[in-house]
Amino acid sequence: MKNQPSGHTGRHFLQIPGPTNVPDRVLHAIAFPTIDHRGPEFADVGKEIVAGMRRVFQTDGTVVVYPSSGTGAWEAALVNTLSPGDRVLMFETGHFATLWRQMATRLGLDIEFVPGDWRHGVDPAQVAEKLTISSLASIDYRHDEWGVDVTVAGSQKGLMLPPGLGFNAVSDKALAASKNAKLTRSYWDWAAMQETGQTGFFPYTPATNLLFGLREALKMLLEEEGLDAVFVRHARHAEATRRAVTGWGLEVLCAEPREHSNSLTAVLVPDGYDADRVREIILDGFDMSLGTGLGKMKGKIFRIGHLGHFNDLMLCGTLCGVEMGLHRAGIPHRGGGVAAALEYLGAA
Amino acid sequence: MKNQPSGHTGRHFLQIPGPTNVPDRVLHAIAFPTIDHRGPEFADVGKEIVAGMRRVFQTDGTVVVYPSSGTGAWEAALVNTLSPGDRVLMFETGHFATLWRQMATRLGLDIEFVPGDWRHGVDPAQVAEKLTISSLASIDYRHDEWGVDVTVAGSQKGLMLPPGLGFNAVSDKALAASKNAKLTRSYWDWAAMQETGQTGFFPYTPATNLLFGLREALKMLLEEEGLDAVFVRHARHAEATRRAVTGWGLEVLCAEPREHSNSLTAVLVPDGYDADRVREIILDGFDMSLGTGLGKMKGKIFRIGHLGHFNDLMLCGTLCGVEMGLHRAGIPHRGGGVAAALEYLGAA
Amino acid sequence: MKNQPSGHTGRHFLQIPGPTNVPDRVLHAIAFPTIDHRGPEFADVGKEIVAGMRRVFQTDGTVVVYPSSGTGAWEAALVNTLSPGDRVLMFETGHFATLWRQMATRLGLDIEFVPGDWRHGVDPAQVAEKLTISSLASIDYRHDEWGVDVTVAGSQKGLMLPPGLGFNAVSDKALAASKNAKLTRSYWDWAAMQETGQTGFFPYTPATNLLFGLREALKMLLEEEGLDAVFVRHARHAEATRRAVTGWGLEVLCAEPREHSNSLTAVLVPDGYDADRVREIILDGFDMSLGTGLGKMKGKIFRIGHLGHFNDLMLCGTLCGVEMGLHRAGIPHRGGGVAAALEYLGAA
Amino acid sequence: MKNQPSGHTGRHFLQIPGPTNVPDRVLHAIAFPTIDHRGPEFADVGKEIVAGMRRVFQTDGTVVVYPSSGTGAWEAALVNTLSPGDRVLMFETGHFATLWRQMATRLGLDIEFVPGDWRHGVDPAQVAEKLTISSLASIDYRHDEWGVDVTVAGSQKGLMLPPGLGFNAVSDKALAASKNAKLTRSYWDWAAMQETGQTGFFPYTPATNLLFGLREALKMLLEEEGLDAVFVRHARHAEATRRAVTGWGLEVLCAEPREHSNSLTAVLVPDGYDADRVREIILDGFDMSLGTGLGKMKGKIFRIGHLGHFNDLMLCGTLCGVEMGLHRAGIPHRGGGVAAALEYLGAA
Repeated sequence: MKNQPSGHTGRHFLQIPGPTNVPDRVLHAIAFPTIDHRGPEFADVGKEIVAGMRRVFQTDGTVVVYPSSGTGAWEAALVNTLSPGDRVLMFETGHFATLWRQMATRLGLDIEFVPGDWRHGVDPAQVAEKLTISSLASIDYRHDEWGVDVTVAGSQKGLMLPPGLGFNAVSDKALAASKNAKLTRSYWDWAAMQETGQTGFFPYTPATNLLFGLREALKMLLEEEGLDAVFVRHARHAEATRRAVTGWGLEVLCAEPREHSNSLTAVLVPDGYDADRVREIILDGFDMSLGTGLGKMKGKIFRIGHLGHFNDLMLCGTLCGVEMGLHRAGIPHRGGGVAAALEYLGAA
Repeated sequence: MKNQPSGHTGRHFLQIPGPTNVPDRVLHAIAFPTIDHRGPEFADVGKEIVAGMRRVFQTDGTVVVYPSSGTGAWEAALVNTLSPGDRVLMFETGHFATLWRQMATRLGLDIEFVPGDWRHGVDPAQVAEKLTISSLASIDYRHDEWGVDVTVAGSQKGLMLPPGLGFNAVSDKALAASKNAKLTRSYWDWAAMQETGQTGFFPYTPATNLLFGLREALKMLLEEEGLDAVFVRHARHAEATRRAVTGWGLEVLCAEPREHSNSLTAVLVPDGYDADRVREIILDGFDMSLGTGLGKMKGKIFRIGHLGHFNDLMLCGTLCGVEMGLHRAGIPHRGGGVAAALEYLGAA
Repeated sequence: MKNQPSGHTGRHFLQIPGPTNVPDRVLHAIAFPTIDHRGPEFADVGKEIVAGMRRVFQTDGTVVVYPSSGTGAWEAALVNTLSPGDRVLMFETGHFATLWRQMATRLGLDIEFVPGDWRHGVDPAQVAEKLTISSLASIDYRHDEWGVDVTVAGSQKGLMLPPGLGFNAVSDKALAASKNAKLTRSYWDWAAMQETGQTGFFPYTPATNLLFGLREALKMLLEEEGLDAVFVRHARHAEATRRAVTGWGLEVLCAEPREHSNSLTAVLVPDGYDADRVREIILDGFDMSLGTGLGKMKGKIFRIGHLGHFNDLMLCGTLCGVEMGLHRAGIPHRGGGVAAALEYLGAA
Repeated sequence: MKNQPSGHTGRHFLQIPGPTNVPDRVLHAIAFPTIDHRGPEFADVGKEIVAGMRRVFQTDGTVVVYPSSGTGAWEAALVNTLSPGDRVLMFETGHFATLWRQMATRLGLDIEFVPGDWRHGVDPAQVAEKLTISSLASIDYRHDEWGVDVTVAGSQKGLMLPPGLGFNAVSDKALAASKNAKLTRSYWDWAAMQETGQTGFFPYTPATNLLFGLREALKMLLEEEGLDAVFVRHARHAEATRRAVTGWGLEVLCAEPREHSNSLTAVLVPDGYDADRVREIILDGFDMSLGTGLGKMKGKIFRIGHLGHFNDLMLCGTLCGVEMGLHRAGIPHRGGGVAAALEYLGAA
């Protein structure tokens, strides 16, 4: 009988940097009947979620939850803290920094953009606002201890939810400053949102069912696995992935080991090869989605998401898919990537 | 054995004007595994949704879908069409008009607010923008034929979804005007959003799983029941509800028969009685949520939602709950409301 | 606009005596991924279920759970206790007694069948084995205290599950007797099944996912609502239903008040009218399923199930549907049935 | 940061020979509200299922569907075709043959059991009844063309369902013979069951919600992937698995290549090592369930299920888990099993 690819049966491998694989329990929670967002049962949901998100952000400050994408939460961070014409220094560290620059310009801010090579991060000491879109609930992130003013996050990464919720963690200092910020705002206004932690209610209709899912995801992260174990797991999977990349003789995009991401790994393909063709072959042949290179990295890298609801064997399947895809796409590489990862993961 | 209330078993009756009862099929669709919103499978979802929403709005124009509440879609309508200092004439027809005024003020517009008594609508000929938050997919709404510039809608009403999606239907004229509108905008910017109908993709991460639900809901509304039948059903349930109110010897808030809503009925309680106490008794005793009176109507009315995924026997259960609640709350009324509704609904 | 029936939108009313309306929580539990029925996680499920079912049966004896319909559990009761040619006295109390007679005959037993009129029960003192297929978890049933040898039950009634699980509660005396019973048996053999309570495992593959649902249903019945409240609720709904029947001027099939069922009510239609035509009109016009008359009662009665996951407003919707259906079918009746039920249920 | 095992997050790998990984779509279908199994909507389900199962069995004969485990379907095959004291020749090919012998003995049959070594199959020409519990819908099985009298199957293998449904495919000859078979039977009686294909109804309450799932699974197998592609996929995964076993320097239990199973692979561990300890280490460390050795093979083999809803990367994850488990358990082996499988699967 002929040896053929398997087609699309079994589970899809969703290994983009987000959305991530959503646990069945969270999907089931989202599918519960919608309730009255002004009623007593909902108030408990609202309060529980804000309390849980404070633990995830490691903050005693204000947490705001929007029915929005993560992009909306970025916009909220800007419009609540800045005034028209404010001068903003931005460091080019990747595609999202570029997008944020567009957003800031549209909102009437005066941007000074410091170009970078996208392969090195920025000295954290220089940056007042830190983006954590991808990493929240995947790495040890300490909003208060690190003195962060505003943290921005979306639901579809480490929080293991579908997209549709945006978050701001806001320091008291930032909250005070927002009273003098003059950018117009209504939907994103922290003033209207900041009571949810006390009352459990929102100033306008929240995304009720996604909040059901968030409650379940927080239970899994905080009460069952525990955040510390979550962080260890992500570090472990990131290390195994980097060993696989090295095993293939390829390069990880991020050049500084101390800046390596524990939630995703961007893999450079050799000059003259198309990373998106690799992704296409892997999607068609092995039903796995990988992340494309964004902006000027398009075609030069593919990104492997290894965050969220994930485990060793899912990672192994992922890396096997990449190794076979490199082979099918004719990318020059060595075959030992999976073996290197197995050696690391299989150690007792 | 003692006759006691039944406690909270069986299905909750969610009879607020929104969110409405979400069909199991839609909840199941929402619970499907999240997919890559940049991949080919998603593009089909995006295109199908925009095409379906055009049919619901009855427009050949642009339909924009936001990951947001309906409030976000309101804000989008304003920031895409107006410039700072623009003078806006607003008619006070109810609580949401008041909220919209707040929003417009926050956004830097100059509002002239024409007070009303909340019991009469506004002459449609005078109004350039029309809100349909509650009624879309419940009544015959014709964006193009009626020459509407921007229509605003949320997912959690007639569309039978949980909250979390906001919609604008935009005429070509409004789209052209938006190029000169000077209110700052980024997340809400139509320019970035208007390609979805062609490409199926969104400028930032959409609320993937709610879109799965929308696709299923559109299938039910457009292909299975059919919009005409949906409208007939809502008119029929509204009529039965008003007959019940009359049967109880109570008054419907909206004084003009031609302005009656087919999606919700606001019931005035006699002076000296508290409508919210009626709601509380009904929630505690019969596990049914009714809508509160908003703004200056608080305590004077309760609102019965009879829209979305609904049928005759669900309406009968709803009206029975109201009739028993009026009795338990000691509201002066006659007992014949349910009987009047049954006479109407039971006619062959 | 024309007044038309509502077609099939909204929730179906499943008011047959079983299967009953399954709670969303139970349906979600059933939809969890199947696990290894020989693994440690499953053992906890098995033990928890047997312990919970003991509380439902009110027995310290053996509880056996089959992957089968309730009919299978009947057969199990027979083949474990009887030998070929055994003489069995059976009382004709309804259609299921007739079915059981067929089964016993097929299994080689010698049946003496005492005819009855189907409108009176049998003196419990005369009956060694008692069927409770419909009523378990709806009425106060005491296997040990009443000295019952074998109780038979199915999942799709008061236990609020889909069909697919059959149960026997077995007294020690019956278990001992089974060692001498000579009817051949393998699948139904108690000897192989009786260890589940201790080990959590089954001699052959159990219906894993239905057991997940049973665990959730037991949690709702035993821990949340509480069996006593469950029994009060069923008694209350049965009384309201009978008052409605009397209000319509119709008769309940069961002639003896002390034998009234709290889980279903069989309604006699007047001579010359077809009860199945009433059911058909109600199904077509109001999307509600009622139970047919079985055996010689076919066409003479329809049965209203008011058991399982149910509440006051669901019952009200049910009774309104019957009242409108009687009207549409032209059955001579008075219109006051719903009013009588509301008066009873609405009392504080 | 310490390198630790990942604990139990992400998806469990259920790689026993059954139950298998159930597709989300099937789980969702099972979670739909239960309907009246005597109503018109159900009749369509019943007829569609029997028609689909005929295609899976490749028969124009009778297909019977029981609410039971596969064991029940075995018993049905015996009690419908045999009479007390009938002499039955059975070939010992594995643990299930032993179980069937027990069953046959309990049912009063006279068994002649031909011992085997469990590593060789039986010449098909000698066998009148063929068991296909594991393989149906995984391999090309032709009930009619091969002249099989009775085929037995369960839902939880290639059909991709949870356990709880049992099947018989019955030739006309066997159906005719059943009229003279004298073993007592009622629940299992083909006579009562054989009309389902025409009427869509069952003689007693079917496992409604599992049938919803079966309908969805049949749609996936017959209409979407197509049975031919399903068979190719299983052959391919079986071949990759055997290459991995060979790569590890271990032996597949089944010694005859032409008898290799395409749905599961039994791996012999070297003498002096405990296969169940390997399974335990893999379950604890990598959250994967493998099948134990049954009967006299206990501790000597572990079994890898690679059937049902499965794809290349799930298989890769599975084989990686085995390779790491062999390492952790200290089983003497070579490390090249995964590499051998990747070479095979990765070939274009």
